[in-house]
Formats: sequence, structure tokens, C-alpha cells
Amino acid sequence: MRLYTYFRSSAAYRVRIGLALKGLDAEAVPVHLVRDGGQHKKPDYLGRNPQGFVPALEVGGQVITQSLAILEYLEEAHPQPPLLPKDPLARARVRSFALAIACDIHPLNNLRVLKHLRGGLGQDEDGVNRWVRRWIEEGFTALERMVEPGAPFCFGDAPGLAEACLVPQMYNARRFGADLTDFPTLVAIDERCRALPTFQSAAPDRQPDAE
Amino acid sequence: MRLYTYFRSSAAYRVRIGLALKGLDAEAVPVHLVRDGGQHKKPDYLGRNPQGFVPALEVGGQVITQSLAILEYLEEAHPQPPLLPKDPLARARVRSFALAIACDIHPLNNLRVLKHLRGGLGQDEDGVNRWVRRWIEEGFTALERMVEPGAPFCFGDAPGLAEACLVPQMYNARRFGADLTDFPTLVAIDERCRALPTFQSAAPDRQPDAE
Repeated sequence: MRLYTYFRSSAAYRVRIGLALKGLDAEAVPVHLVRDGGQHKKPDYLGRNPQGFVPALEVGGQVITQSLAILEYLEEAHPQPPLLPKDPLARARVRSFALAIACDIHPLNNLRVLKHLRGGLGQDEDGVNRWVRRWIEEGFTALERMVEPGAPFCFGDAPGLAEACLVPQMYNARRFGADLTDFPTLVAIDERCRALPTFQSAAPDRQPDAE
Repeated sequence: MRLYTYFRSSAAYRVRIGLALKGLDAEAVPVHLVRDGGQHKKPDYLGRNPQGFVPALEVGGQVITQSLAILEYLEEAHPQPPLLPKDPLARARVRSFALAIACDIHPLNNLRVLKHLRGGLGQDEDGVNRWVRRWIEEGFTALERMVEPGAPFCFGDAPGLAEACLVPQMYNARRFGADLTDFPTLVAIDERCRALPTFQSAAPDRQPDAE
């Protein structure tokens, strides 16, 4: 397997966590989102992923795009250890949590949108940071209430799909100076995850393309 | 099952399509997103769904939020007819397509974001419409290249998860006057779907709360 990745992409970070939790190796192929006007916008990368986003996972010559589709694929092709519980309603709760990050926080704050806020809507850095923190803080308010009360991780005793989405989003939150005081449960789960070797190996500053 | 829904919400529309494709009934509980300052922001609804979004599906006293988590739940609890193919790589392709809509088009254009563009960033209706169309047209450019060439639906001979996301997004695109001339494949698939009674029963103007 080859993973098209960028050290700071939080969607790629999710997949790196999923691979690490499952003990799977994938050759990292760095795609620089800024250098050369964005290597993800070059025809050869767009041929692999028409959206031009990272991550993309190449498996047996086929390319899977979208981090959550990649994580679901890993779960189906390599079931152990599981990223999702067994019961359909329990699986739905974990997926809701993951999607609340992957749909309703991250896409509002990714590179192309922040670029358009600056260039298209004339926002200064202060305006851009307020925009980012707004959606993070609104999203985290819901997430703090969605986790299983009293559990060490989001839902139960082991990290999985929910934490693979939460930890990269917490990384982004710190990067943009979001106020995390109202989210003690999320902060505690994030710290518990980041103490694990699996999560450490997936961290942005441990990647071959880290700057 | 009870479906908390709003006739014009494209995420609720996805779930209505999924239920119809599977021949399942759910009692519709309308949640008006504008009236009374937004019924989705009232404490009783936030108790069901901390994100305060529609749709939410109540099953045996538990509430599932996030349209894609609901659709995956329906697929697991009621496998026939399937919304996803069997092969893991084929499933991944369909999920990538669905997520490219659910993550990278829709959340940028939903009600709360458009409200903030108007109120917070001072955009006029022209600016808001340009914003909406920008993400639709960028997203559709990728989607047009992601479908299976020559197939009657997005991937193969029957509609499923991909079309449950595409048709509501096409409805939004028409509502906001997006230019669809560059997306003939998506337009043809959408028309083919909307000719089916299952998709017709899920349409916004056929809902009890339609205005």
C-alpha cells in the first residue's frame, strides 16, 4: 500500500492513525500542498484523485480517496484490531462522532477554504483565525456531549475511528489557538491517545516530510 | 423508527432516499430550521442531537445522527436491497463519492454557514450565491470524473449510497443556480434517479412539512 500524504493534513493524519492502530505499513508518498503551487494540483496527482486532496491510499493499483472511506476499507480488509464496535447502533454512534468532525468541522477550515477567505473575501489573518475557531468551538461543544460518559476513550476501552478523527482535529485546534477550556473530556482523551506509541508514530512532526 | 427531518435539508433528503430504497417506513417528525428561531436549537432537540442538525433517526429509543452514519446503520440492520456493493474496494469507491459530497460540498453551504457569511462576514446575497456555487462547481468537477464510465448510475446498475447523496446535492445546485453544463453525467444520473418512485417519494416537495 502507498499513502499519498502531507505531514500537516489532518485527514492524512487520521489514516496514519488507522494504519498504526491496525499495525499496517504503507509507503508514504509526500504530496506538498504549498510547494510548486501545490503538488496536489498537478495532473498526475489529479489523475489519482480528481478532488486533488490528500490522503489517497493506493491498494493493488487502485486508489481510494477520502479519509473515512479509507478507514472503512482498512476495517473491512483488515478487521483486527477493530476500529468500530460490533453492534450496529454502537457502530452508528462512533461513525456519527467521526462524521461530526470530518463533515462539520474540518472541511470548513481546510487550506482551500482559508485561501478563499483571504483571497476571495478579503479576510485578514485575524478574521481567518476567528473563522477557524468558530467552527472548532461549535463542533467541540457537541462532541464533548457525544462521548460515552466516564469511558477512557470516546466510546469504551480502546481507541478507534472516533479517536483517529479527534486527535488530528485537536492538533488543528491547538495550531489555531482555539480555547479548549470548555472541553475537558476531549482534552483528556486526546492526551491519553497521544501517550500511545501508535498515535505518536502517526503525528505530523514524526513524518518524513515534516518541516 | 422516527426520522427528525426538514423538507429542504439535503442531509435529511439523503436518509429519506435510503429509507425508500430499502422499503422502510419511519415516522416523519418535522423540525423547522427557520420558524421559532430554529426548532433545532431548542433544548429538547439538542438533547436528542447535540449538534442540533437534521436528520436524526430514533431507533428503539436511541438516536443516530449524521446522515451517512444513519445510512450505514440502515445498510447493516437491513441489508436488502444493498446501498453498497460487496467488494471492499468497490465499497470504498462508492463511499469516497458520497463523502466528497457530504464532507466537501454540503457542509460549506449549509444554513449555519450561509447565515454566518451574511451576518458575520457581511456578504450580500450575490456573495453568498457565489460562495455556494463555487464549492458545488469545484466538487462536481471531481464527481463527474469519479463515476463509473458508461454505467446508468454512479457505480453500476442500481442506485444506492452514491445517488442518495448526489440527488439532494443536485437539488441544492439547482436551487442556487449553479451552472451544470459541464456535468452531463451527473445530470443524466440525477434525472434517471428522479424518474424512480423511490426517489420521488423522498423529494422535498412531497414531504408533510413542505412549504
